[in-house]
Amino acid sequence: MVVSALKWVGDVDGCLELVDQRKLPGEFVKFRCQSIEDVFDSIKELVVRGAPAIGVAGAFGLVLGLRDLDEGDTLDRGLNLLKKGCEKLASVRPTAVNLSWALHRVTDAVEKFVLEGTIGDCRTLRKFVLEQAGAIYDEDVDMCRRIGLNGRGFIKDGGGILTHCNAGALATAGQGTALSVLFEAKKSGRKFTVYVDETRPVLQGARLTAWELRQADIDTVVICDNMAGWLIKQGLVDVVITGADRIAANGDVANKIGTYSLSVLARENGVSFYVAAPSSTFDLALADGAQIPIEHRKSEEVTNFGTERITPECVGVYNPAFDITDAADITAIITERGVIERPNKENIAKHFER
Amino acid sequence: MVVSALKWVGDVDGCLELVDQRKLPGEFVKFRCQSIEDVFDSIKELVVRGAPAIGVAGAFGLVLGLRDLDEGDTLDRGLNLLKKGCEKLASVRPTAVNLSWALHRVTDAVEKFVLEGTIGDCRTLRKFVLEQAGAIYDEDVDMCRRIGLNGRGFIKDGGGILTHCNAGALATAGQGTALSVLFEAKKSGRKFTVYVDETRPVLQGARLTAWELRQADIDTVVICDNMAGWLIKQGLVDVVITGADRIAANGDVANKIGTYSLSVLARENGVSFYVAAPSSTFDLALADGAQIPIEHRKSEEVTNFGTERITPECVGVYNPAFDITDAADITAIITERGVIERPNKENIAKHFER
Repeated sequence: MVVSALKWVGDVDGCLELVDQRKLPGEFVKFRCQSIEDVFDSIKELVVRGAPAIGVAGAFGLVLGLRDLDEGDTLDRGLNLLKKGCEKLASVRPTAVNLSWALHRVTDAVEKFVLEGTIGDCRTLRKFVLEQAGAIYDEDVDMCRRIGLNGRGFIKDGGGILTHCNAGALATAGQGTALSVLFEAKKSGRKFTVYVDETRPVLQGARLTAWELRQADIDTVVICDNMAGWLIKQGLVDVVITGADRIAANGDVANKIGTYSLSVLARENGVSFYVAAPSSTFDLALADGAQIPIEHRKSEEVTNFGTERITPECVGVYNPAFDITDAADITAIITERGVIERPNKENIAKHFER
Repeated sequence: MVVSALKWVGDVDGCLELVDQRKLPGEFVKFRCQSIEDVFDSIKELVVRGAPAIGVAGAFGLVLGLRDLDEGDTLDRGLNLLKKGCEKLASVRPTAVNLSWALHRVTDAVEKFVLEGTIGDCRTLRKFVLEQAGAIYDEDVDMCRRIGLNGRGFIKDGGGILTHCNAGALATAGQGTALSVLFEAKKSGRKFTVYVDETRPVLQGARLTAWELRQADIDTVVICDNMAGWLIKQGLVDVVITGADRIAANGDVANKIGTYSLSVLARENGVSFYVAAPSSTFDLALADGAQIPIEHRKSEEVTNFGTERITPECVGVYNPAFDITDAADITAIITERGVIERPNKENIAKHFER
């Protein structure tokens, strides 16, 4: 059973239903966003997270941002509201590019259809934005499956796989990115053990990835993040596979903090390092990873555990949510279009020309 | 103010007082061991931890193991009790060598003095064991200070230092090993920032090291373990310094899990990597690190946080408490005798010949 991170419930007056990921695996609770503010807060507070999922959530957030439009409101008011909603949501998490990609895909399509005269009033506008968000959702589901099929050959029978953070169904509308590769490998009959970095400070690995893998009846071993290097050195890992939050034109990858270290430790020990991500994760406007903004999050994520304080008072905290992995340390990037071996500017450009 | 991990209270009928390190930094509570079983449990449950500290605690544990001897008991009974106590305590944590070093130092001295006829009855035996334990304690205090003085020159004014786990006063009878270097650098007027790996699963860095550094008014920044690589890559770290639990004849170092990864990431980024440890940490009987036994600890340390379960049920756990760092990745080992640059079999042998 694959539980995706979100779905839209109802018609244009409906709402966005999220699995509250802060409460997993202890509780499986759904949270319904009734307003764009609800979506903004849900992304900020990690009710929903994962680059593809927050892209889809953002697109549905735009629908909710238009819900107060009356029949009598001018299209200009509607377009203005859409623009403001887009700006608001785009700011909430700066590293993942899928969010701004999804938002702009909706607003670009609206702009085109307004120019063409297909959208002439707010009622049509709202319906159209919902259709666009729905299309992004559907494509995400399809994209996840394709990534899994394109990558499953890298997972050998009897192997050990290490993953970091959560790049599963809970990070997408579909069955995930990195985990989709594992789900498809499992479906095709292979048996393997997945080592899961717990992924401090928010523990997406221990809480979410371990839960998804166990739901899929995959052999799962949780480790603390600082054990990964030694695990690799002990020969227990054949393949490291992660998702991505943004990929530059040269193949440098922004992903959950800790990914950079894994890539160095994998190379050091001759282990393959794969990144699985949809095309919407590429930001070809950025030459390399140095240009990707890194989100720093609040210090309480590190100093506290739940409500319990773990550090003394008066300490500083460094809490970047992401880091950058050099393209040179990535064996291949798996997208819904295929596989980019030895990712670099030329190979990536070729991948998108096809 | 430096708070050491332990002290003996009273005469031969006294007890061993430990700072309960499980409760820091929230509570500063002392725990009094009245029996050898109390010492065994305290070492096992990490009331006291840190290679030098558990060595000293073990030596005092032998005193407590003899407390039930009566005036009328034969010396043979006393020696037998001492031997059993030694075996019991030596087994509790297999990786740190300081524990068995301290225990055997006491029993070897007893053997010698029995042969010489200086120890002829149980009363003398008990007094002698306490004196021996006290001597180990005193030497540990002196040794810590010397390590600090020998290493402080490696800490530059305005620099960034990364440390892992706790190699402070709480890990010794004195002012620590790696942290002693920082305390002495601070005393000599240098200002610097210490980045502290929180050190999952037991959080010795976030809880203990951060607390000690703040007590000493040193600028302290806590990070999650998976942030260390990126921190180093960002150029914020000039020096990595850790303690050690056992050092083989070739300079391979067993230390808290995660140390190996730091050593690779430091070398990758051209950052110096120092290990600070007393001579008693060397196990010259072992040719290299592959022969050092690695303690694996209970899975609940990873699956639970306090009483809260963080992973789903039915997941496996890999929880090695230590890993091995290659001698080739260590810039220097700092002991109370001096500094071993480029540690290898020859340089280490030379260090001990002096």
